[in-house]
Amino acid sequence: MENTVEKPYVIGLDMGGTNSVFGIVDQRGTIKAQTVISTTAYPDFKDYVKASVEALKPCIDLVGGIQNIRGMGVGAPNANFYTGNIENAANLVWQGCVEVAASFEEALGIPVRVTNDANAAAVGEMTYGVARGMKHFIMITLGTGVGSGIVIDGKVVYGSDGFAGELGHFVIDHTPAGRPCGCGRKGCLECYCSATGVARTIREVLANSNEPSLLRDIDPEKVTSYDAFVAAEKGDKLALEVFDRTGRLLGTACADFTTFSTPEAFVFFGGLTKAGEYLMKPLREAFEQNILRNFKGQTKLLVSALNGSEAAVLGASALGWE
Amino acid sequence: MENTVEKPYVIGLDMGGTNSVFGIVDQRGTIKAQTVISTTAYPDFKDYVKASVEALKPCIDLVGGIQNIRGMGVGAPNANFYTGNIENAANLVWQGCVEVAASFEEALGIPVRVTNDANAAAVGEMTYGVARGMKHFIMITLGTGVGSGIVIDGKVVYGSDGFAGELGHFVIDHTPAGRPCGCGRKGCLECYCSATGVARTIREVLANSNEPSLLRDIDPEKVTSYDAFVAAEKGDKLALEVFDRTGRLLGTACADFTTFSTPEAFVFFGGLTKAGEYLMKPLREAFEQNILRNFKGQTKLLVSALNGSEAAVLGASALGWE
Repeated sequence: MENTVEKPYVIGLDMGGTNSVFGIVDQRGTIKAQTVISTTAYPDFKDYVKASVEALKPCIDLVGGIQNIRGMGVGAPNANFYTGNIENAANLVWQGCVEVAASFEEALGIPVRVTNDANAAAVGEMTYGVARGMKHFIMITLGTGVGSGIVIDGKVVYGSDGFAGELGHFVIDHTPAGRPCGCGRKGCLECYCSATGVARTIREVLANSNEPSLLRDIDPEKVTSYDAFVAAEKGDKLALEVFDRTGRLLGTACADFTTFSTPEAFVFFGGLTKAGEYLMKPLREAFEQNILRNFKGQTKLLVSALNGSEAAVLGASALGWE
Repeated sequence: MENTVEKPYVIGLDMGGTNSVFGIVDQRGTIKAQTVISTTAYPDFKDYVKASVEALKPCIDLVGGIQNIRGMGVGAPNANFYTGNIENAANLVWQGCVEVAASFEEALGIPVRVTNDANAAAVGEMTYGVARGMKHFIMITLGTGVGSGIVIDGKVVYGSDGFAGELGHFVIDHTPAGRPCGCGRKGCLECYCSATGVARTIREVLANSNEPSLLRDIDPEKVTSYDAFVAAEKGDKLALEVFDRTGRLLGTACADFTTFSTPEAFVFFGGLTKAGEYLMKPLREAFEQNILRNFKGQTKLLVSALNGSEAAVLGASALGWE
């Protein structure tokens, strides 16, 4: 036998609205095998599990069989860590309550843990990433939405109901001017710091200025944060203002969040972090300006070092070690 | 021997800027003996400890000697749970770092834990009060300042530095109109929902209206939240508006805080809670209006049932069981 460690692998499943990506991962966070199935093709969840097991079979064989696999972790929308179920996920084909952990445990004969993707990302950072060794940090995922995973004393906070850590829906603007959010309220952090939030900021910044900008050449309904990054690279003033506003809002919110759990670090993940210093510089400045005196200088503001395309599977897999 | 339980008592010390109150407490939260010394009379902390032990001696004898006492808990400003020290407390006579836990452990020969008074209050509610049996709740103390103690998975959150849970310094108004706070920033929750914050709201409400009010008969610099309560009891419209504004701000903030740890309950403690429904009704309404849909209807908003004058000692003593 090549491996002397008992059960040296875990399975990670990143369950997206469209595709489900599976990876078999070792303790260093190397993906040894990977496979994908459609999430939408199986209206009956039993068929989805059957298709998953079939797709996984060659991957499992590649690492010497299921006896080498310690457990499985699943990152999925509206996943409840306590029950192992997905509950009323708007973006998935299955309605109501889906018993994800129980179904996969039965099908594979290994322990299975589920949680939402931001919590999975936090476990991933703690296991393979920049938060290795940290006991207190807050993961902020900046994607289509804004998600968060809060780690206290080395454990993700799941709260009383299994759904804690929804900082994307922390309201940062309670005035009537707060942007309408998909959650039905106004002014949530997500409305400003997600991909769609930044696109909205681009349109606002362009509308409120007469300054020339490369961003004016793009259909306002299709403009993205990546366009702003490209323009910022060329010194475009309004593109820089977009990142400045976004970074300042996020840094100010994080300074407030510090009063909760005084984390050692915030770890930012997702497409928006590709903007690098355009985002991080104003973020750091606003954080330092807004942090309570007693907490000054003790919090790191870090960008995830996990490979973006692999991070979701790695994050999910990390749950398999727990 | 009367008690069959081994070591059935704990010592609680509520260390205030002026007085230090000691109590010997049983497992039901009954104070068996109590004593007080001056906090300010001993510029050398060693003398303070000596005086404390002397004052405690008859109380300890009353419960059958130190062998009946399991531990001691101290609630004190700027107390660090991890180190057992008080660090740079502005309102105490001792400068710099004071080794509270180590000094009392040496003097009494029992384990000693320290934390700030809001965290102590949270442990007190969990041990003797309305949060008994709860694993997830947030304590909000409404006194001269606003403090908080956050309990997750049955444990107080001390964070990376021992000072977590400072929700009184969560900024709820980031606009230039945010009220200046003692911490040097603007718009902290404490500036609105503490005793001094409510007094400020009284002055604002009076200044912005021509409505007659009983509160106009009181020196604006001396008016208190208790005056507003008395006026509210007589149906005074502006007094009711003061509580309405205060309750709504607090309820809205708590709805936001829920995104963090989805607590089962918020427990409110302190003088302001004597306003009862004048405060709690708008608080509940604002909470329900502002809570994220997914979290609706699952959080209790409770008022502490601990006797106000005993609560601080009880809270501190509860740490002695841990």
